[in-house]
Order: sequence, then structure tokens, then C-alpha cells
Amino acid sequence: MTLLEIALRINGHLNGPEDLEIKGPAKIEEAGPDEITFISNKKYRHHLENTLAGAVIVDQDYENLKIPHIRVENAYVGFLFVLKIFAPEKSHSFRGIAPGAVVEKSATLGENCDVAPHVYIGAHATIGKNCVIHPGVVIGDHVRIGDDCILYPNVSIREACRVGNRVIIQNGAVIGSDGFGFAPKDEAYIKIPQIGNVVIGDDVEIGANTTIDRATMGSTVIEDGVKLDNLVQIAHNCVIGAHTVIAAQTGMAGSTKVGRHVTMGGQVGVNGHITIAENNIIGAKSGVTKSTRPNEVLLGMPAVPIMQQKRMDVSMRHLPDIVKRLNQLEKEIIALQEKAEK
Amino acid sequence: MTLLEIALRINGHLNGPEDLEIKGPAKIEEAGPDEITFISNKKYRHHLENTLAGAVIVDQDYENLKIPHIRVENAYVGFLFVLKIFAPEKSHSFRGIAPGAVVEKSATLGENCDVAPHVYIGAHATIGKNCVIHPGVVIGDHVRIGDDCILYPNVSIREACRVGNRVIIQNGAVIGSDGFGFAPKDEAYIKIPQIGNVVIGDDVEIGANTTIDRATMGSTVIEDGVKLDNLVQIAHNCVIGAHTVIAAQTGMAGSTKVGRHVTMGGQVGVNGHITIAENNIIGAKSGVTKSTRPNEVLLGMPAVPIMQQKRMDVSMRHLPDIVKRLNQLEKEIIALQEKAEK
Amino acid sequence: MTLLEIALRINGHLNGPEDLEIKGPAKIEEAGPDEITFISNKKYRHHLENTLAGAVIVDQDYENLKIPHIRVENAYVGFLFVLKIFAPEKSHSFRGIAPGAVVEKSATLGENCDVAPHVYIGAHATIGKNCVIHPGVVIGDHVRIGDDCILYPNVSIREACRVGNRVIIQNGAVIGSDGFGFAPKDEAYIKIPQIGNVVIGDDVEIGANTTIDRATMGSTVIEDGVKLDNLVQIAHNCVIGAHTVIAAQTGMAGSTKVGRHVTMGGQVGVNGHITIAENNIIGAKSGVTKSTRPNEVLLGMPAVPIMQQKRMDVSMRHLPDIVKRLNQLEKEIIALQEKAEK
Repeated sequence: MTLLEIALRINGHLNGPEDLEIKGPAKIEEAGPDEITFISNKKYRHHLENTLAGAVIVDQDYENLKIPHIRVENAYVGFLFVLKIFAPEKSHSFRGIAPGAVVEKSATLGENCDVAPHVYIGAHATIGKNCVIHPGVVIGDHVRIGDDCILYPNVSIREACRVGNRVIIQNGAVIGSDGFGFAPKDEAYIKIPQIGNVVIGDDVEIGANTTIDRATMGSTVIEDGVKLDNLVQIAHNCVIGAHTVIAAQTGMAGSTKVGRHVTMGGQVGVNGHITIAENNIIGAKSGVTKSTRPNEVLLGMPAVPIMQQKRMDVSMRHLPDIVKRLNQLEKEIIALQEKAEK
Repeated sequence: MTLLEIALRINGHLNGPEDLEIKGPAKIEEAGPDEITFISNKKYRHHLENTLAGAVIVDQDYENLKIPHIRVENAYVGFLFVLKIFAPEKSHSFRGIAPGAVVEKSATLGENCDVAPHVYIGAHATIGKNCVIHPGVVIGDHVRIGDDCILYPNVSIREACRVGNRVIIQNGAVIGSDGFGFAPKDEAYIKIPQIGNVVIGDDVEIGANTTIDRATMGSTVIEDGVKLDNLVQIAHNCVIGAHTVIAAQTGMAGSTKVGRHVTMGGQVGVNGHITIAENNIIGAKSGVTKSTRPNEVLLGMPAVPIMQQKRMDVSMRHLPDIVKRLNQLEKEIIALQEKAEK
Repeated sequence: MTLLEIALRINGHLNGPEDLEIKGPAKIEEAGPDEITFISNKKYRHHLENTLAGAVIVDQDYENLKIPHIRVENAYVGFLFVLKIFAPEKSHSFRGIAPGAVVEKSATLGENCDVAPHVYIGAHATIGKNCVIHPGVVIGDHVRIGDDCILYPNVSIREACRVGNRVIIQNGAVIGSDGFGFAPKDEAYIKIPQIGNVVIGDDVEIGANTTIDRATMGSTVIEDGVKLDNLVQIAHNCVIGAHTVIAAQTGMAGSTKVGRHVTMGGQVGVNGHITIAENNIIGAKSGVTKSTRPNEVLLGMPAVPIMQQKRMDVSMRHLPDIVKRLNQLEKEIIALQEKAEK
């Protein structure tokens, strides 16, 4: 694709050779003469001196650049569109319903789906149009999936769960495993049947090997636009609010509700039966033990407001010193007391 | 099913219309006129005023209820039986050994098993009766599995491992992966062969994407009645005592022994080569660094008795204040000392 | 195998019956009369009194042993070779390319590979010789894999990723899932295409259900000799240096670089866009928030030098006591001040 074509497609102003052939996007430190890169943060401006890139996408206010460049409103977003241009439309080579796929007769598939070999689709499952279902995916009975979804290899979706439109589920993720519910009986436990399901909204992305348990009754709910990273655990009857983003290895105990637009770092743990209010930001490795108010920024175990945690961390480092100072004070007090006695 | 039938099956005393048709169980806030619910904790009694449920299961001591109800010894247990009545007996539609399953000739299966398409069962594997093996399950050579087990999609059980009776393994769990053992050699590491196996008792449940490594020699052991949640890691040569319950994302390093009736919260880490004594309760996110005594309740990293940890957490919040008070005291002491000098 | 044969194969000096038939290796506490064991740490020497083992491997300096024994330079290494002798050469019974495997026509496989039923190998994939590919493995289009690799059940490797020689990937691991990259747009997020890949060196081992995300651009890199345990998360664009060892459930945020010969405990979290220098040791459950220098040993959240953390942990336990002492001091100061006023 020529530089001019790229400039036109990202609605930018080209300053450089129109017919320069660009083979793809690359990071500024790694780009070669047939690649295009971008600079968004002024902090990295010095890279412009040394880059071998064929061209660079920059914000409107960059001037006097010697290197061929395309000026756009927002270089980061512009580059994102370039990524999309060069991203392969399809990264798989199976087409239609592969002979090696097993689709139960009562299941229905929309038009234009690609279903790989070694896929299993259960009875009465309903799948929308334009879906791509990779090898090893298992879809249970009565599952309903919308349009334009991608299920990567070895994803499994258990019976009666529902998935919206434009949902992407990365490899090995599990949707609808039994919730972890047992009632003590004598010395042992008996299993509480988990007869609910999982309901996933539109435009959700779910990370590799992430697990979302079905509800005991009712539904575990992942609302529209939620993004879950890899190895995340969502327990039964949780509700994750729209456009909430949760980083890898974070886990939520049962029946917890997370509001809209929450951001959680990695390895966070959230107690069961509490509410994380909207627009919260929870720092990595935090343990949230009780419900929060909107717009809080929390850190630590147990999680407290981030500035408080940071002050505590600093004080902690002085703690051994504090003990010494305390010992010293006690000695001095005794000395003063003895003097006063005299 | 009519209300009378339900009352008879849970051995309760009905007060309401015998022929009311009930379609299923539901939570008290969500139940409709053709659903049955329950109330166990008196704290939630106010829900009885507003519920739309067709009927409610209550303890013996509830009186003067207007809503149709069934009185039982223990409402919670009674409702659990209702859940079981309405839980579908089979949530899958494959029957017998599906044509798309691959079962090596030397493997043997008990009567009445359902083996899905895309299942692989290795040579000399032995599987009991009434087992359900979902699509994508892989069972290695010489594996032995008891009766009445359910293996959900994409579970894999490696060579020579053993599984008891009535064991449920959720999607994607891995039984018998190689233990993480390497010996340093020059600048690199050489793999220590892991020639042991995993032995799982009866009535065990293993969560989705949980991993249990095979022993270097001998066996990694999961005793009867153990319940492991999702994404749990059990390293080589661990022994998990009977009826121990471990929540999601908890991990155990190698050769650790956990006693009977232990309860661990989520995201706990346990050191290798130590012993967690029976009846311990380990709070979420704790790090247990050394062996414990029976009946301890521990929390924190490193884990200490829970009351000590809670006192430390409270003191921590005063730490920045402590520093201020200490500064003030030092000033006052100096003032007193100067005065005393005069 | 006779005791003499074993002695010859591990290059040791036998003191005992040459024709004693040994059936396998075992731990010293569990070994029987037809098994061989070892003792390496002098601390466990007392086990020699009671072991039922047929023979024991010991270091050169053991003398006057009554039990049959083989003396070698290093008993631990000697025993490791015995483990290798008795480890089954192949733990699977499928041979060649199984009829139930689906291999796209444009894919190529080296000689002497075993490809199980229910395997999928995508278009233009290239696989070296002597590889074992277990059931349920999914290999994407354009993937390149070297010689002598073992891919255990349900591993998936996404399009265009590369794997070196002698790499072992345990069950359910995911290589090349999309990096977790989203750009905020209005109230929602749009996906940043992840067009890079994962490149894995030689002699790497990757644990069960571990996930390694593909790069946004360029490559996520796992260098030669790296060993990753189970349920580890490596985010997009990370680089893990050669011969680094990472224990279970540890996670790394995006674009972080880890040096050579680093050792990380379990459940460690590492911030994004930082550098862990070579030869670092990071204790279990630590959270590393900023770049480190070579040869550091760190612990805690946030991670600090281990001795500092241990001092802090000890001080912490005195913290409630410190508050009491501080209260007492304040009272005494007031008393002294009042006295001085008089």
C-alpha cells in the first residue's frame, strides 16, 4: 500500500513521497524503510532522530520534520487505524462448516460462519452470522451466540449460556462452569446444583484461560463492552458493569457486583457479596474487602484510598527506625525521671 | 410439578394450594408466581412482604404467613433438594460412545457411559460406569477413572493418573501435567523427569482450568471429598487432606501437605515442603510460609493469627500519625532536657 | 535392570549384589526391596537406618554402609540419571499422523512425528522432526515449530508464532492469544489490533494453562532455556531472558523485560514497561513496581530488598505494641512537663 493511500484512509495530511510502498506498521525503534510508525508522546520525540522508518504519523503540531510524515488529529488513533488496515482480515484458513466439525441437528448457524474441524456444537444451540469458531471449541446445548463473534481454539461455553454480538473469546476461556457452591453436611460437603447460566453482552472481550462460573440460580452477567484479561476468575452470580476493564489474574468471589467503567489492575482479589461502585480504579494486587463508593481509587490489602496506602508504604520503610527512636526516647525519659526524682 | 409433589419430596408441611404448578426455583427477589423460593436467614425476612414467588420454603418456626409455604426442618437444605429436583438430569445430548470419539482398543469403559465426539481415550485406560465425558476431553494411557464421574469439555488427564468415584472435573482442568522440577547445570537447567502420577479420591470436585501436577516420584494426592475452585495450582507431590476446600487462584508449592477439613480463601499462596494442619482456615490472599498447628485461623503475608493481622492492619493505618507523634515527643524531650540542664 | 547395569550407566562404584533386579526409583521413605533411592543432603542421613530400599545412591564420602549402594560424584545428579533411565520413552500410544488429525495441505511435518487424533494443524504451518503432538492441540496458520518438541493435550498456538527446538508445552497452555490492548473512545473502548506474534527459543518449558500473549507489533519473546510454571501470565511485548525460571501464577504486565537467570517465586506480579535486571531473585507474592538492578533479591509489595522486607515484617508484629509504648511515653512526658512547671 502506498503512503498516499494510507494518508487518505486515515484522513491525514501527507508530507512525503506519495508512491512510497509501505509493507506494514512497526514500533519506532524497530521500523525499517518500508514500514510506517507513529509518535504520540512528546517524551519519545528523540526517536525521530534515529528511526529508520519509511514514514511516521504525527500530531498536527509537529513541524519541520525531515522524515516523510502524515499529520493527523491524533497520531495514536491514526496509527491504530493503520494497524487495522494491515491486520489480516482472517487469520484462519478453514471456511464454512468443516467436515470434521460436529454440529447437532437441532443447532442453527447464521450465514457466513466458519466452523473449524474438531468443533462441537450442542443440541438447540443458536449461533448468529459471520462467526468464526476455531478448532477445539465446545458449545453446549441451548447456548445462544450473537453475530460477528470469534471463539478462539479450545474455548468452551456450557449449556444454556448466552453471548452477545461482536464478542471475542480468547483461547481456552471457560464460560459457564459450575459455581463453587457446597453445603456442609456432617464431616463432608454436598454440591449445590448450579442451575443458572452466564449472560455476556455485546462487544465484550474475554482473555485466554479466563473462567466465568454459571449462577446458582439466575445469571452471572458480563455487561456490554467489558474487557477481561487472561486467567481472570469471575465467580457465580457476579455482575460486571458495562465498559469495565479487568487485568490478568484478578478474581472475584461470588455474588459481587462491579459498576460501570471500573478499572482493575492485575492479581486483584475482590470479596464476595460486595459492590464495587462505578468509576473505581483498583490498583494491582489489591484485596477489596468491602463495598466502595463511586470514583474511588484504591490500593493495598485490605484496599484503602491510594494516597493513604502510599503514605503507609513510606512509613513502613521507617518502621525499624521508629522502633529505634522509641527505644531511645524511653531511655531518655527514664533519665529525665531519675533526674526529676532527685 | 405441583406444590404438593414438592412438599412430599422434601418431606415438608404444605400450607397453600396443592395443585399450584411450579416451574422451578428462584431467588426471593426474582421469583415469579410459578416459581418457588426460600428464606433461611431471618435477616432477609422483609423480602417476604414483596416477593412475587408462588411459594416459599421456610423453617418450622415461621407462622402467620399469607404466602403459600412449605415448612421444613431446615429451609436451606430443603431448597437445596428443590434445586436438585429441577436440575436437569443430563445437560448434554450425546449418548453412548459417539462416532467422533477415539477410544484406543485396549481401553475399557463401564456400562452406561456417554462419550462425546472429539474425545480421546488412551491405551489401557479404564473408565467405570455411568461416566459422562464431554467433547475435547483427553484421557492418557493407563489412566483409571471410577464410576459416576463427569469430565467437562477440554479436561485433560495425563498418563497413569487415577480418579475415584463421583468425581466432577470442570472445563479445562489439567490433571497430571509434569511437576516443575529442574536441576541447575552450568548456566542452564536440565529437566528432572516426573515419573509419578496424580491420585484423586472419591467425591472430589475440581474447578475450571485448575492444574494439578504429577509427582516426581510417587503421587500427588487429592483425598476424598476435596473441593478445588477454578484456576487453582497444586504442585508435584502435594497431599490435600480429605474434605478440604480451596477457593479460586490459590496455589501450593511442591511437596506441601494440607490436612483434613482445611478451608482456604482465594489467591492464597502456600510455601513448599510445609504442613498445613487440619481444620485450619486461611484467609484470602494470605501467604503461608511455615507449617501450622491444628485449628489455626491465619491471615496475611506472611500469614499470622487473624486477630494479630487485623490489629496490625489497624495500627498500620495509624502509622503516618505515629511518626508525627514521635517527632513531637522528641521535640518535647529535648525541651525538657534543656530545661533540666539549666 | 540389575544394580550393576545401573551402576555402569551412572558411572558409579557399586558395593552390593550385582544381579539385584531393580524395578524403579523411589523416595527413601517409600522405597521397597526392588527399588533404588538416593541420599544427597546429610540432614536426611538417618533415613538410611530404616529404609527398605534395595539400594541407595550416595556421594563419594559415605562409608561403612550396610545397605547395597552406588557411590558417585554427586548423588543427586546420579539419581536424576536413574530417573531418566526409568522414565518411559513415550507416554503415548498414537504413532505417525493419526487418521483423526486434521492437517491442512500446505502444512509440513518433519520425519518421525506423532500427531494424535483431534489435532488441528493450520495452513503453511511448519513442524520439525521427532515432535509429539497430543490430542486436542491446535496449531494456527503459519506457525513454525522446531525439532523434538512435545505439545501436550489441548495446547493451542496461534497464527504466525514460532517455537524453537526441544520445547515442552504442558496441557492447556496458550501461545499467542491477543494482547490486552484497548483505546478509550467516548464511553467505551476499541480494540487495538494485535498483529505481532510470540517467539519461543530452544529448550523452553511452558506450564499447564499458562498464557503468553502475542505482541501488538513485533514479538513477545521467551528466550532459550526459560522455564515457566503453570498458570503464568506473560503479557504482550514482554521479553523473558534466557534461563529465567518463573513459578506458578506469576504475571507480567505488558512490555516488561526480564533479564537472564532471573528466578521468580509464585504469585509474583510485575508492573508493565519496566526491566527486571539479570540474576534477580524475586520472592513469592511480591509486586515489583519499578525497574531493578542486577543481582537484587527482592520481596514484598511493593518489592524491596529482602532483608529490609523481613525487618519490616518483624517490626510490623510489634506495631500494636509500639502504639501502646507511644501512649505511655506521651503520658510520662506530660507528667514530667507538669513537674517541671511547678
